[in-house]
Amino acid sequence: MAYDTNNIFAKLLRGEIPSIKLAENDAAVAIMDVMPQSEGHVLVLPKEGAEEIYELSPEALSAAMAMVHTLAAALRKALTPDGLMIAQFNGAAAGQTVPHVHFHLIPRRNGEELRMHARDMADKAELEAVAARIRAAL
Amino acid sequence: MAYDTNNIFAKLLRGEIPSIKLAENDAAVAIMDVMPQSEGHVLVLPKEGAEEIYELSPEALSAAMAMVHTLAAALRKALTPDGLMIAQFNGAAAGQTVPHVHFHLIPRRNGEELRMHARDMADKAELEAVAARIRAAL
Repeated sequence: MAYDTNNIFAKLLRGEIPSIKLAENDAAVAIMDVMPQSEGHVLVLPKEGAEEIYELSPEALSAAMAMVHTLAAALRKALTPDGLMIAQFNGAAAGQTVPHVHFHLIPRRNGEELRMHARDMADKAELEAVAARIRAAL
Repeated sequence: MAYDTNNIFAKLLRGEIPSIKLAENDAAVAIMDVMPQSEGHVLVLPKEGAEEIYELSPEALSAAMAMVHTLAAALRKALTPDGLMIAQFNGAAAGQTVPHVHFHLIPRRNGEELRMHARDMADKAELEAVAARIRAAL
Protein backbone atom coordinates (compact mmCIF):
# COMPACT_ATOMS: atom_id res chain seq x y z
CA MET A 1 0.00 0.00 0.00
CA ALA A 2 1.16 3.59 -0.58
CA TYR A 3 2.92 4.86 2.52
CA ASP A 4 1.07 7.71 4.28
CA THR A 5 3.76 10.28 5.11
CA ASN A 6 1.40 11.95 7.58
CA ASN A 7 0.86 9.02 9.93
CA ILE A 8 1.76 9.79 13.55
CA PHE A 9 5.01 7.81 13.54
CA ALA A 10 6.19 9.60 10.38
CA LYS A 11 5.48 12.90 12.13
CA LEU A 12 7.23 11.69 15.27
CA LEU A 13 10.29 10.63 13.25
CA ARG A 14 10.39 14.09 11.66
CA GLY A 15 10.22 15.65 15.12
CA GLU A 16 6.84 17.26 14.45
CA ILE A 17 5.26 15.60 17.46
CA PRO A 18 6.98 14.82 20.75
CA SER A 19 8.09 11.41 21.98
CA ILE A 20 9.95 9.92 24.91
CA LYS A 21 13.06 8.60 23.21
CA LEU A 22 15.18 5.80 24.59
CA ALA A 23 17.65 5.24 21.77
CA GLU A 24 18.25 6.41 18.23
CA ASN A 25 20.64 5.66 15.39
CA ASP A 26 20.65 6.22 11.62
CA ALA A 27 18.14 3.47 10.99
CA ALA A 28 15.77 3.26 13.96
CA VAL A 29 14.33 4.90 17.06
CA ALA A 30 13.13 3.38 20.34
CA ILE A 31 10.42 5.22 22.26
CA MET A 32 8.01 4.69 25.12
CA ASP A 33 4.51 3.65 23.99
CA VAL A 34 2.27 6.40 25.38
CA MET A 35 -0.64 3.97 25.66
CA PRO A 36 1.25 1.11 27.26
CA GLN A 37 -0.19 -2.38 27.61
CA SER A 38 2.11 -2.92 30.60
CA GLU A 39 4.76 -0.90 32.43
CA GLY A 40 7.80 -0.54 30.21
CA HIS A 41 6.00 -1.01 26.87
CA VAL A 42 8.54 0.15 24.28
CA LEU A 43 8.25 0.64 20.51
CA VAL A 44 11.05 0.36 17.98
CA LEU A 45 10.44 2.18 14.70
CA PRO A 46 12.60 1.78 11.60
CA LYS A 47 13.15 5.22 10.09
CA GLU A 48 12.45 3.90 6.61
CA GLY A 49 8.90 4.71 5.55
CA ALA A 50 7.06 1.39 5.19
CA GLU A 51 3.52 0.52 6.20
CA GLU A 52 3.99 -3.22 6.64
CA ILE A 53 6.93 -5.59 6.97
CA TYR A 54 6.55 -6.67 3.34
CA GLU A 55 7.61 -3.20 2.12
CA LEU A 56 10.48 -2.77 4.58
CA SER A 57 13.98 -3.30 3.16
CA PRO A 58 16.02 -6.21 4.57
CA GLU A 59 18.61 -3.69 5.81
CA ALA A 60 16.00 -1.62 7.69
CA LEU A 61 14.52 -4.76 9.23
CA SER A 62 17.92 -5.99 10.37
CA ALA A 63 18.80 -2.61 11.89
CA ALA A 64 15.45 -2.35 13.66
CA MET A 65 15.85 -5.84 15.09
CA ALA A 66 19.32 -4.99 16.37
CA MET A 67 17.71 -2.15 18.32
CA VAL A 68 14.94 -4.48 19.53
CA HIS A 69 17.67 -6.81 20.79
CA THR A 70 19.41 -4.01 22.69
CA LEU A 71 16.18 -2.72 24.19
CA ALA A 72 15.09 -6.23 25.22
CA ALA A 73 18.28 -6.58 27.26
CA ALA A 74 17.82 -3.13 28.79
CA LEU A 75 14.18 -3.84 29.70
CA ARG A 76 15.16 -7.08 31.37
CA LYS A 77 17.93 -5.40 33.33
CA ALA A 78 15.94 -2.30 34.28
CA LEU A 79 12.54 -3.78 35.05
CA THR A 80 13.20 -7.52 35.65
CA PRO A 81 9.81 -8.58 34.28
CA ASP A 82 8.82 -12.27 34.37
CA GLY A 83 8.65 -12.34 30.59
CA LEU A 84 8.95 -10.19 27.48
CA MET A 85 6.68 -10.29 24.46
CA ILE A 86 8.01 -8.94 21.16
CA ALA A 87 5.40 -8.39 18.46
CA GLN A 88 4.93 -6.74 15.10
CA PHE A 89 1.47 -6.44 13.55
CA ASN A 90 0.67 -6.09 9.86
CA GLY A 91 -2.80 -4.89 8.99
CA ALA A 92 -5.73 -3.85 11.18
CA ALA A 93 -6.85 -7.50 11.31
CA ALA A 94 -3.58 -8.26 13.13
CA GLY A 95 -3.89 -5.31 15.51
CA GLN A 96 -1.86 -2.67 13.66
CA THR A 97 -3.06 0.81 14.63
CA VAL A 98 -0.45 3.08 12.99
CA PRO A 99 0.50 2.50 9.31
CA HIS A 100 4.27 2.58 9.89
CA VAL A 101 6.10 -0.66 10.73
CA HIS A 102 6.82 -0.91 14.46
CA PHE A 103 7.91 -3.52 16.96
CA HIS A 104 6.32 -3.78 20.38
CA LEU A 105 8.38 -4.87 23.40
CA ILE A 106 5.91 -5.62 26.17
CA PRO A 107 7.15 -6.73 29.60
CA ARG A 108 4.95 -9.42 31.15
CA ARG A 109 4.47 -10.15 34.83
CA ASN A 110 2.96 -13.29 36.33
CA GLY A 111 -0.73 -12.84 37.08
CA GLU A 112 -0.95 -9.49 35.30
CA GLU A 113 -3.25 -9.15 32.30
CA LEU A 114 -2.25 -6.88 29.43
CA ARG A 115 -4.13 -3.62 29.18
CA MET A 116 -6.01 -2.96 25.93
CA HIS A 117 -3.84 -1.85 23.04
CA ALA A 118 -3.84 1.88 22.23
CA ARG A 119 -6.62 2.86 24.60
CA ASP A 120 -5.53 4.78 27.68
CA MET A 121 -2.92 7.49 27.66
CA ALA A 122 -0.36 6.99 30.42
CA ASP A 123 0.76 9.70 32.81
CA LYS A 124 3.73 11.48 31.24
CA ALA A 125 5.72 11.75 34.47
CA GLU A 126 5.32 8.01 35.07
CA LEU A 127 6.46 7.24 31.52
CA GLU A 128 9.47 9.52 31.94
CA ALA A 129 10.40 7.77 35.17
CA VAL A 130 10.28 4.33 33.53
CA ALA A 131 12.19 5.69 30.53
CA ALA A 132 14.96 6.94 32.83
CA ARG A 133 15.33 3.45 34.32
CA ILE A 134 15.51 1.85 30.87
CA ARG A 135 18.04 4.40 29.59
CA ALA A 136 20.22 3.72 32.64
CA ALA A 137 20.30 0.03 31.64
CA LEU A 138 21.30 0.70 28.02
CA MET B 1 19.43 -19.73 31.75
CA ALA B 2 21.31 -22.89 30.73
CA TYR B 3 20.03 -24.07 27.37
CA ASP B 4 18.23 -27.44 27.51
CA THR B 5 19.60 -29.43 24.57
CA ASN B 6 16.69 -31.86 24.86
CA ASN B 7 13.84 -29.39 24.26
CA ILE B 8 11.58 -30.38 21.36
CA PHE B 9 12.93 -27.74 18.97
CA ALA B 10 16.51 -28.83 19.65
CA LYS B 11 15.44 -32.40 18.82
CA LEU B 12 13.60 -31.21 15.74
CA LEU B 13 16.67 -29.26 14.55
CA ARG B 14 18.77 -32.41 14.99
CA GLY B 15 16.22 -34.37 12.94
CA GLU B 16 15.28 -36.59 15.87
CA ILE B 17 11.61 -35.69 15.61
CA PRO B 18 9.72 -34.92 12.40
CA SER B 19 8.58 -31.51 11.19
CA ILE B 20 6.90 -30.01 8.16
CA LYS B 21 9.68 -27.84 6.79
CA LEU B 22 9.10 -24.82 4.60
CA ALA B 23 12.61 -23.40 4.30
CA GLU B 24 16.07 -23.99 5.72
CA ASN B 25 19.49 -22.42 5.52
CA ASP B 26 22.67 -22.53 7.63
CA ALA B 27 21.20 -20.33 10.34
CA ALA B 28 17.45 -20.99 10.55
CA VAL B 29 14.52 -23.26 9.75
CA ALA B 30 10.89 -22.43 8.98
CA ILE B 31 8.27 -25.05 9.85
CA MET B 32 4.51 -25.39 10.21
CA ASP B 33 3.29 -25.02 13.82
CA VAL B 34 1.56 -28.34 14.51
CA MET B 35 -0.81 -26.67 16.98
CA PRO B 36 -1.71 -23.66 14.84
CA GLN B 37 -3.53 -20.64 16.23
CA SER B 38 -4.80 -19.97 12.70
CA GLU B 39 -4.41 -21.54 9.26
CA GLY B 40 -0.85 -20.96 8.05
CA HIS B 41 0.75 -20.52 11.49
CA VAL B 42 4.48 -20.78 10.80
CA LEU B 43 7.48 -20.90 13.15
CA VAL B 44 10.99 -19.70 12.38
CA LEU B 45 13.71 -21.22 14.56
CA PRO B 46 17.30 -20.00 14.66
CA LYS B 47 19.58 -23.03 14.68
CA GLU B 48 21.73 -21.51 17.41
CA GLY B 49 20.81 -22.94 20.80
CA ALA B 50 19.37 -20.10 22.88
CA GLU B 51 16.43 -20.16 25.24
CA GLU B 52 15.51 -16.49 25.04
CA ILE B 53 16.31 -13.57 22.76
CA TYR B 54 18.82 -12.19 25.29
CA GLU B 55 21.13 -15.17 24.74
CA LEU B 56 20.81 -15.25 20.94
CA SER B 57 23.76 -13.79 19.00
CA PRO B 58 23.10 -10.69 16.87
CA GLU B 59 24.05 -12.71 13.77
CA ALA B 60 21.58 -15.50 14.55
CA LEU B 61 18.82 -12.95 15.22
CA SER B 62 19.49 -11.15 11.96
CA ALA B 63 19.49 -14.40 9.97
CA ALA B 64 16.29 -15.60 11.63
CA MET B 65 14.57 -12.29 10.88
CA ALA B 66 15.63 -12.50 7.25
CA MET B 67 13.81 -15.83 7.10
CA VAL B 68 10.79 -14.33 8.91
CA HIS B 69 10.75 -11.62 6.23
CA THR B 70 10.79 -14.17 3.42
CA LEU B 71 8.09 -16.30 5.00
CA ALA B 72 5.90 -13.26 5.70
CA ALA B 73 5.91 -12.45 1.99
CA ALA B 74 5.19 -16.07 1.07
CA LEU B 75 2.32 -16.30 3.55
CA ARG B 76 0.77 -13.14 2.18
CA LYS B 77 1.07 -14.38 -1.40
CA ALA B 78 -0.09 -17.93 -0.68
CA LEU B 79 -2.91 -17.33 1.78
CA THR B 80 -3.86 -13.63 1.34
CA PRO B 81 -4.83 -13.19 5.01
CA ASP B 82 -6.26 -9.85 6.18
CA GLY B 83 -3.30 -9.38 8.50
CA LEU B 84 -0.16 -11.04 9.81
CA MET B 85 1.03 -11.09 13.39
CA ILE B 86 4.71 -11.74 14.07
CA ALA B 87 5.58 -12.54 17.67
CA GLN B 88 8.41 -13.85 19.81
CA PHE B 89 7.84 -14.73 23.47
CA ASN B 90 10.47 -14.82 26.20
CA GLY B 91 9.52 -16.65 29.38
CA ALA B 92 6.40 -18.54 30.36
CA ALA B 93 4.87 -15.28 31.61
CA ALA B 94 5.01 -14.03 28.02
CA GLY B 95 3.57 -17.23 26.53
CA GLN B 96 6.76 -19.12 25.66
CA THR B 97 6.09 -22.86 25.67
CA VAL B 98 9.35 -24.29 24.25
CA PRO B 99 12.70 -23.11 25.67
CA HIS B 100 14.32 -22.42 22.29
CA VAL B 101 13.92 -18.96 20.68
CA HIS B 102 11.25 -19.02 17.98
CA PHE B 103 9.25 -16.53 15.95
CA HIS B 104 5.55 -17.00 15.30
CA LEU B 105 4.01 -15.86 12.01
CA ILE B 106 0.25 -15.99 12.49
CA PRO B 107 -2.10 -15.05 9.64
CA ARG B 108 -5.14 -13.10 10.83
CA ARG B 109 -8.53 -12.93 9.19
CA ASN B 110 -11.27 -10.40 9.91
CA GLY B 111 -13.79 -11.72 12.40
CA GLU B 112 -11.72 -14.81 13.24
CA GLU B 113 -10.47 -15.30 16.79
CA LEU B 114 -7.10 -16.93 17.39
CA ARG B 115 -7.21 -20.49 18.67
CA MET B 116 -5.47 -21.17 21.98
CA HIS B 117 -1.71 -21.42 21.76
CA ALA B 118 -0.23 -24.93 21.81
CA ARG B 119 -3.44 -26.77 22.58
CA ASP B 120 -4.91 -28.75 19.71
CA MET B 121 -2.87 -30.82 17.28
CA ALA B 122 -3.82 -30.08 13.68
CA ASP B 123 -4.56 -32.72 11.07
CA LYS B 124 -1.27 -33.63 9.37
CA ALA B 125 -2.73 -33.81 5.86
CA GLU B 126 -4.26 -30.35 6.26
CA LEU B 127 -0.94 -28.94 7.48
CA GLU B 128 0.88 -30.53 4.54
CA ALA B 129 -1.63 -28.99 2.12
CA VAL B 130 -1.13 -25.50 3.56
CA ALA B 131 2.65 -26.05 3.60
CA ALA B 132 2.59 -26.93 -0.10
CA ARG B 133 0.80 -23.64 -0.87
CA ILE B 134 3.35 -21.64 1.17
CA ARG B 135 6.33 -23.40 -0.43
CA ALA B 136 4.91 -22.62 -3.88
CA ALA B 137 4.93 -18.92 -2.95
CA LEU B 138 8.55 -18.91 -1.72
